[in-house]
Amino acid sequence: MIAVLKNGTTPDQVQHLVDWLKNMNLDVHISQGAEVTILGLIGDTSRVDIDLLKSLEMVETVKRVSEPFKQANRKFHPLDTIIEVGNARIGGGYFAMIAGPCSVENEDQIIEVATAVKQSGANILRGGAFKPRTSPYAFQGLKDEGIRLLLKAKKATGLPIVTEIMNISTLDLFDDVDIIQVGARNMQNFDLLKELGKTNKPILLKRGLANTLQELLMSAEYIMSEGNSKVILCERGIRTFETATRNTLDLSAVPVLHSLSHLPVVIDPSHATGKANLVAPMAYAATAAGADGIMIEVHNNPACALCDGAQSLTPPQFDEIARKVRQIREVIA
Amino acid sequence: MIAVLKNGTTPDQVQHLVDWLKNMNLDVHISQGAEVTILGLIGDTSRVDIDLLKSLEMVETVKRVSEPFKQANRKFHPLDTIIEVGNARIGGGYFAMIAGPCSVENEDQIIEVATAVKQSGANILRGGAFKPRTSPYAFQGLKDEGIRLLLKAKKATGLPIVTEIMNISTLDLFDDVDIIQVGARNMQNFDLLKELGKTNKPILLKRGLANTLQELLMSAEYIMSEGNSKVILCERGIRTFETATRNTLDLSAVPVLHSLSHLPVVIDPSHATGKANLVAPMAYAATAAGADGIMIEVHNNPACALCDGAQSLTPPQFDEIARKVRQIREVIA
Amino acid sequence: MIAVLKNGTTPDQVQHLVDWLKNMNLDVHISQGAEVTILGLIGDTSRVDIDLLKSLEMVETVKRVSEPFKQANRKFHPLDTIIEVGNARIGGGYFAMIAGPCSVENEDQIIEVATAVKQSGANILRGGAFKPRTSPYAFQGLKDEGIRLLLKAKKATGLPIVTEIMNISTLDLFDDVDIIQVGARNMQNFDLLKELGKTNKPILLKRGLANTLQELLMSAEYIMSEGNSKVILCERGIRTFETATRNTLDLSAVPVLHSLSHLPVVIDPSHATGKANLVAPMAYAATAAGADGIMIEVHNNPACALCDGAQSLTPPQFDEIARKVRQIREVIA
Amino acid sequence: MIAVLKNGTTPDQVQHLVDWLKNMNLDVHISQGAEVTILGLIGDTSRVDIDLLKSLEMVETVKRVSEPFKQANRKFHPLDTIIEVGNARIGGGYFAMIAGPCSVENEDQIIEVATAVKQSGANILRGGAFKPRTSPYAFQGLKDEGIRLLLKAKKATGLPIVTEIMNISTLDLFDDVDIIQVGARNMQNFDLLKELGKTNKPILLKRGLANTLQELLMSAEYIMSEGNSKVILCERGIRTFETATRNTLDLSAVPVLHSLSHLPVVIDPSHATGKANLVAPMAYAATAAGADGIMIEVHNNPACALCDGAQSLTPPQFDEIARKVRQIREVIA
Repeated sequence: MIAVLKNGTTPDQVQHLVDWLKNMNLDVHISQGAEVTILGLIGDTSRVDIDLLKSLEMVETVKRVSEPFKQANRKFHPLDTIIEVGNARIGGGYFAMIAGPCSVENEDQIIEVATAVKQSGANILRGGAFKPRTSPYAFQGLKDEGIRLLLKAKKATGLPIVTEIMNISTLDLFDDVDIIQVGARNMQNFDLLKELGKTNKPILLKRGLANTLQELLMSAEYIMSEGNSKVILCERGIRTFETATRNTLDLSAVPVLHSLSHLPVVIDPSHATGKANLVAPMAYAATAAGADGIMIEVHNNPACALCDGAQSLTPPQFDEIARKVRQIREVIA
Repeated sequence: MIAVLKNGTTPDQVQHLVDWLKNMNLDVHISQGAEVTILGLIGDTSRVDIDLLKSLEMVETVKRVSEPFKQANRKFHPLDTIIEVGNARIGGGYFAMIAGPCSVENEDQIIEVATAVKQSGANILRGGAFKPRTSPYAFQGLKDEGIRLLLKAKKATGLPIVTEIMNISTLDLFDDVDIIQVGARNMQNFDLLKELGKTNKPILLKRGLANTLQELLMSAEYIMSEGNSKVILCERGIRTFETATRNTLDLSAVPVLHSLSHLPVVIDPSHATGKANLVAPMAYAATAAGADGIMIEVHNNPACALCDGAQSLTPPQFDEIARKVRQIREVIA
Repeated sequence: MIAVLKNGTTPDQVQHLVDWLKNMNLDVHISQGAEVTILGLIGDTSRVDIDLLKSLEMVETVKRVSEPFKQANRKFHPLDTIIEVGNARIGGGYFAMIAGPCSVENEDQIIEVATAVKQSGANILRGGAFKPRTSPYAFQGLKDEGIRLLLKAKKATGLPIVTEIMNISTLDLFDDVDIIQVGARNMQNFDLLKELGKTNKPILLKRGLANTLQELLMSAEYIMSEGNSKVILCERGIRTFETATRNTLDLSAVPVLHSLSHLPVVIDPSHATGKANLVAPMAYAATAAGADGIMIEVHNNPACALCDGAQSLTPPQFDEIARKVRQIREVIA
Repeated sequence: MIAVLKNGTTPDQVQHLVDWLKNMNLDVHISQGAEVTILGLIGDTSRVDIDLLKSLEMVETVKRVSEPFKQANRKFHPLDTIIEVGNARIGGGYFAMIAGPCSVENEDQIIEVATAVKQSGANILRGGAFKPRTSPYAFQGLKDEGIRLLLKAKKATGLPIVTEIMNISTLDLFDDVDIIQVGARNMQNFDLLKELGKTNKPILLKRGLANTLQELLMSAEYIMSEGNSKVILCERGIRTFETATRNTLDLSAVPVLHSLSHLPVVIDPSHATGKANLVAPMAYAATAAGADGIMIEVHNNPACALCDGAQSLTPPQFDEIARKVRQIREVIA
């Protein structure tokens, strides 16, 4: 970490600051220039409160040189992490094709969709049981019954399942769930992350709507620092000024995260865009950008003429996407 | 709620959609224009999934006419909510002067600061015991010991206290805390909000870094819908592209929230700006904008020459702010 | 256009508003509901000042139903626009592979790069002559000499050229330029757009850093409304809170713009990302998303060991990108 | 300027870079640490292309230590700039109360409003003649006729006038205009800025919707580097995700700009908020934050019942604002 001190800082003030930093077990290397004084801080700077340091009157600017995440950092773990779940693998050249309905509704629905997407090449089944909703009056999912139905679909198809947890008090219900999802709104629910770090289940960690990629990696670090290194990162759109799409899908997250971290990166184009006609192009783009997986909403409700064109795709639409995704992967391999 | 259908939607499709909406106990009023068909939805539209509706192929646009929040809504509760806590009142013309250190460090510190800020006119003491931190390796506060020290300061000065909760499992520790704070990162931790809605304590609810004012009110609604109507809204800066300040303090939140809701609105200029020299101007601006309170970080560490100029102010600096804030309140009364 | 009036608006006020709107040659269709009054405005609403209308006390909300752009609108021009320039075509299934150096530096450089990128399959040469720079003290390009050198490279290779204009007073210099580029900072320099609308040259219009896709189309409309319909839209990244990349490349712009407009859409991954290792993945992603072209910075400076890894790619790196882009285009065709 | 090099950079690469930098007339001070190599660049770094430097493979990060603006920089000009225009002064303790209609409509209107606002204490008259509009089909102002009418109002009241220029070709029309305004969309129209720098008129420079405060100061620098040091900075709201207000007024811009620059800072609450009921609180807040002036839209159209509640205020509403603004200025003096 480097701290640049303001012009006009007195030697006494510099000494005060250096003493304070040494107190935190840091080595401090002072470089006195004509215009500025630069302090190089050597040691475990991950514990330094960078905001406090920046806010000191004498400090012009502070810059981390080494990233504050360690276990998620590719520098210390050059090889890609490969996460195994059932017969599926994610990362290091293995691709996760995750598909399923937004919400689990009933047994027929979930088994039918699971069977269809498996046939098209999906290797993981998704489905919402606990649904975080902006309004307290909105439908919040089938909850434990939803998980029970997902497990039936898992049994029927052999597909491993991923579903979202909202509260650590429900962890028991996830005993037979293969991957536990942390939603965007809980990305910085640090107590939840720490508890999930004590399990040995793969965690699919979604990026918060206004969180930087470094913050995403710091949240992964919360899980990993408790002993669970099976973290899958997921980009699902960030909040910007643009209103033509629900959120702005940040596909540069794929190569950026790959350069910073060894963890696999999955893209969710369904939630980011909010329109079915955007899901396919963004799924292809995510694949071409080098993602380790995509996560697609698929419904199967022939009776509901309305649902065509909604955020969810039909099984035949998913089938075409899955096919082209495989072809794009061959091109960029 | 109004749904505008696309040109070219067939009568059959319109009928399908109308039936689906009626199924949700809504009255549907169809207005057929030359270019567009407009559906007016009457009834309890708070349960309608607006994202799903928008994502339908035939739907051009959906617009709520009535706000989805009810108990927080000024339309149904025209009078300002006044929240009483100890000898302090907040809202409806009463002003909360909340001050104290960022983190509780030890007994001397917290009692000294509490005594000083009370003398300057503060009527509520703040102090962090549980600290949400981006890094798992950073200091996370004194936790239960921090709350114990805050209670000592409360006893010594008579000031009611506000401190942050991060996890519902620690609720017992807050028995004698006067106001429970929900931090920005937990604004959409819906399970936490629901549990706090079952208490009868005032909740200071901070706006998330990327949350709209309507989402803030929906989160207040989560608390209120469980029976606790004592919610204090707090603006503490939003995330934008500007890097000169830690966050961008959105002071128009004050008159906007006052027009939409009867709940009191408090401003936290310390966290938003991250620099001591910005706290005073933003505190004056917040007061002039009509805020029902401000929340200021004050430290008292004469030995720490370093801390001057940090985000926290000294007691004499706070004393001047408190005095001018009272004068500005007289001007705008 | 639909205007929803607030509850409690008097019949007199409604009449005032209706008279005012009729004065603008609009038909007004009043739909009186139990809770709200809705006005449907029929006619040429593109002249209505939507901000003024929204700001009226009695108005709850205003929503455009038809887009305010006409000539750029796919509804009125269902077929893709195909723009011809030299031997290249853009749009409607034709792909623009635009490559060249950031700035034109000297004759050898530009001809060497032009020759190399042509061999790899580029069909248009790019190069900066007038460079908009944040600092008045920074190098602002070779200006007219830069254009002269580009024309030499055009003559040597047969490639049509695209370069940026910053000021209409320099238009004469662009006589033999094939495509005139409008930079992101000038996207809403309306007087410049109008003058370019009076030429018959293709205009490559870059999206402003904080402009919505609708605003981009409105700026295209400025050019088209003066008679020049040869507009190429270009996404080059928007400004968000994320700092890992220079800007956030919004690839969903491709399918969104294609659904709203018949104009071709080109992606510039070099400026958006600012790092060479991100250019290739984003070029593949742009192609997979269905873009009508990409625009890549290529330099050729074997003497400058420094430049490796900069935003610009070397000719061999570009050659690989061009090859894979062609393969991805076959997959999604 | 400081450049931190990546771990693993070879001595040869370092030497290449150092030679390249020395070529730009910079002194380079190398500080070789255990983990990183830091280069301190001394000299006129304002000409260094920071984006290019950052994009080099071997470079971890680059940080400016000295600001890239010089003439606008308070470090080199500690005293506040005071701009005189007619009988008004702006900056250094003098306050600009700028008021007038959004657009000049006719002689009666502009003279009536000018007379009214002068009586309430306004010392500068504003009015739009050339109006930048998103749509080419919208009313674009009375243009030269609008300026003629403003000059009549100036003659009638003695108030100096400010109005916007969109195109340098119209500069002659501004001969008797006292302050020339550059709109937000033209903040980085560098050719326009340079031409205005050759005049000796005060320039009111509005911040672009997505521009940082440093970029605003760099645009001021464009004007000042050509010889015109009379620049007034104006904050008018930035683009964020929040939709409750038209833009988000960033009032921390006032103390931040005051700390970085000696130029006066004016706030425009009318355009930022877009609703009359938000103008007064934001005008008070701007004053309390220490602004050197405010700019308020005032209309005078008793016949137009519609206009009440629009973004513009009536003269009596402005009168109350002006009175309270004076009182707040006394408090914070």
